[in-house]
Amino acid sequence: MIPVQPDRFLADLHALRQFGASGIGKGVIRPAYSDADIEARKWLAGRMAEAGLKPRFDPVGNLFGLAGDRSLLMGSHSDSQPEGGWLDGALGVICGLEVARAAKEAGGPPVSVVSFQDEEGRWGVTTGSTVWRGKLSLEDADRLTDHGGLSFGDARARMADLAGDWVSPEMFTGFMEAHIEQGPWLEQSGETIGVVNAIVGIRDMRITFTGQQNHAGTTPMHLRRDAFQGLAAFNAKIAERFKGLVTDATVWTIGHVALTPSASSIVPGKAVFSMQWRDGDAARLDRMERIIRDTAAEVADERGLGLSFGEMLGLDPVDMDARLQDALAEAAEEVAPGKWRRMPSGALHDATNLSHLMPVSMMFVPSIGGISHDFTEDTDEADLVAGLNVLARAAAKL
Amino acid sequence: MIPVQPDRFLADLHALRQFGASGIGKGVIRPAYSDADIEARKWLAGRMAEAGLKPRFDPVGNLFGLAGDRSLLMGSHSDSQPEGGWLDGALGVICGLEVARAAKEAGGPPVSVVSFQDEEGRWGVTTGSTVWRGKLSLEDADRLTDHGGLSFGDARARMADLAGDWVSPEMFTGFMEAHIEQGPWLEQSGETIGVVNAIVGIRDMRITFTGQQNHAGTTPMHLRRDAFQGLAAFNAKIAERFKGLVTDATVWTIGHVALTPSASSIVPGKAVFSMQWRDGDAARLDRMERIIRDTAAEVADERGLGLSFGEMLGLDPVDMDARLQDALAEAAEEVAPGKWRRMPSGALHDATNLSHLMPVSMMFVPSIGGISHDFTEDTDEADLVAGLNVLARAAAKL
Repeated sequence: MIPVQPDRFLADLHALRQFGASGIGKGVIRPAYSDADIEARKWLAGRMAEAGLKPRFDPVGNLFGLAGDRSLLMGSHSDSQPEGGWLDGALGVICGLEVARAAKEAGGPPVSVVSFQDEEGRWGVTTGSTVWRGKLSLEDADRLTDHGGLSFGDARARMADLAGDWVSPEMFTGFMEAHIEQGPWLEQSGETIGVVNAIVGIRDMRITFTGQQNHAGTTPMHLRRDAFQGLAAFNAKIAERFKGLVTDATVWTIGHVALTPSASSIVPGKAVFSMQWRDGDAARLDRMERIIRDTAAEVADERGLGLSFGEMLGLDPVDMDARLQDALAEAAEEVAPGKWRRMPSGALHDATNLSHLMPVSMMFVPSIGGISHDFTEDTDEADLVAGLNVLARAAAKL
Repeated sequence: MIPVQPDRFLADLHALRQFGASGIGKGVIRPAYSDADIEARKWLAGRMAEAGLKPRFDPVGNLFGLAGDRSLLMGSHSDSQPEGGWLDGALGVICGLEVARAAKEAGGPPVSVVSFQDEEGRWGVTTGSTVWRGKLSLEDADRLTDHGGLSFGDARARMADLAGDWVSPEMFTGFMEAHIEQGPWLEQSGETIGVVNAIVGIRDMRITFTGQQNHAGTTPMHLRRDAFQGLAAFNAKIAERFKGLVTDATVWTIGHVALTPSASSIVPGKAVFSMQWRDGDAARLDRMERIIRDTAAEVADERGLGLSFGEMLGLDPVDMDARLQDALAEAAEEVAPGKWRRMPSGALHDATNLSHLMPVSMMFVPSIGGISHDFTEDTDEADLVAGLNVLARAAAKL
């Protein structure tokens, strides 16, 4: 048993949401490398030190609280979406902090904590853990730019005074990440805990159509090369062509759109947009990519538009480690008998990257209304505490 | 005869484009009330004074160069699109300046000049002349906001030190506006001059779909309320429903789109976009409006989206004054025998507003490639000078 303290855990969770508090419900605005994000990481480092852990920032701002030379790692991320909730990432970090702190107080087992940087993908997808894993070099990461044109290199320079050396993955026996489900399934089934068996894969790419910017009154419809109309045609065609290939669990999203010059009296000369798609089957992700590239090329050709694809970022689907998964399942049955399930994660997490370095597992608690990436994201506090208890029990079983 | 000087005219036209020069070709960035726009207006006021005209700014920054108590008014506007060309508006202002200056030097007839403010519609459509006309009250105009949230009231306050009283429309016997065609027809037919017989009407409205912002990985496609998908469905449906109603000359444009929060990993919770449509027939504009409103409501209903319409701005189609039009036609035949035509204007102009106050007319010169509202907008200088000569001859005939 690791004697976790629910009140202390909840107090820390609420303290963390004050950094970048949106002022709307419990929402937070704490994107990677913002002032709020950096201040939150400094506060977390302080809480780690108070718990007897050794805080350590690496060159990209991933924050570790180390329990020794060889330990179980727990955590998630403390950066948020541009308009995010208080639990996405924060729950896993504070769960990890409380289990590590309680374990330290109880004299073992050694548990370390981590908050990865830019999990939310201001510069792509799970940037901090992708660099830590070694899949993306620091040099290549530094050249990535966010939607506002800020480079990753310039952004991480904001934390340069805190940065230490890289932390070796060899220090950890495994990784356990607690997270909100961010989907509707646990709430709809009335269950408390989800033991994750796999994480779906993701692809993310920016696409640009270039047309001819022109006067919206004097340019006849048949002579237009309207970049927004290219985007609209692409959007309709891929939905049609995905039929028969996708499953109910497959998702795709155009979440970001930027027109140039974006004025009501001007035919748009350029449309830059994000195309993201997710599925548990890597071969299906590849087939979707083929459709996306071919359809964009076809639309560009039909409409006389220029076309360019940005770098494709993404991660393949991964299975969770069987031993860690079983420890979570046993603990879930003890804490919430009959009220848990094994399930895949539709969201990407840092655990995807860590699966290439060590055994990993994940645990979900329900999201009210299935809502996340929104100020209204929330979970019943009883479910948060149940999740903490499952995690503490699972860690003690290893 | 009014002895205009082509070299002086071209020199002033090139001087004006230095204000807000984009550094790309002859392009300009001189939106209403920007520093570049205000500096350009101060320079224009200086040139008017040097020409013996009396410069006068009104409360919204419309700049008049007055030739006396009763005169023919010539001009256009000197504000530009966010990314505009050097001739749109500027041509009419500098043509007016040269004709007024030459007339003054020759001892008559009296010609005044005007540069209206915000013709390009940062705050709607032809804002400066709409307020001058009295169709939009200053109080209502002040509450309009641009896409960045800046109010018209705050913007015009930037010119408050220059502002004088309103100029009475009673001072003018008529209005003549020279302009680039901004469309392909004159160039394609090898003609030099277009004598405008009518200006099409325009409607412009912002539409907002509100959905549910959510996680792009964990929210199944069938549970999404994606505001961008609402916009895409609306865009496709109106194109379908306009068939059979519209003519080859009818145009409609979605030129501005803003998603919230506009991140690749988030299902868009809100889409605000501009919907603009133009036609020479007011009844057709009304029928299009009905389709737009009904279709948006239907899409919102089908997809569980919120819907709101912004204020609809616009102007009805107007015919040009027969006497002024004939003076331009006679002059065109003298300057470019057999190389001119009567034609409608697909673009809206300040002349539309002035038609409610006095007899108005317009004259076009060709646009290379039909391109406007773009840095590459241009016209052969021989055509610019031909236009100046037509205008000077027409003014002398009245």
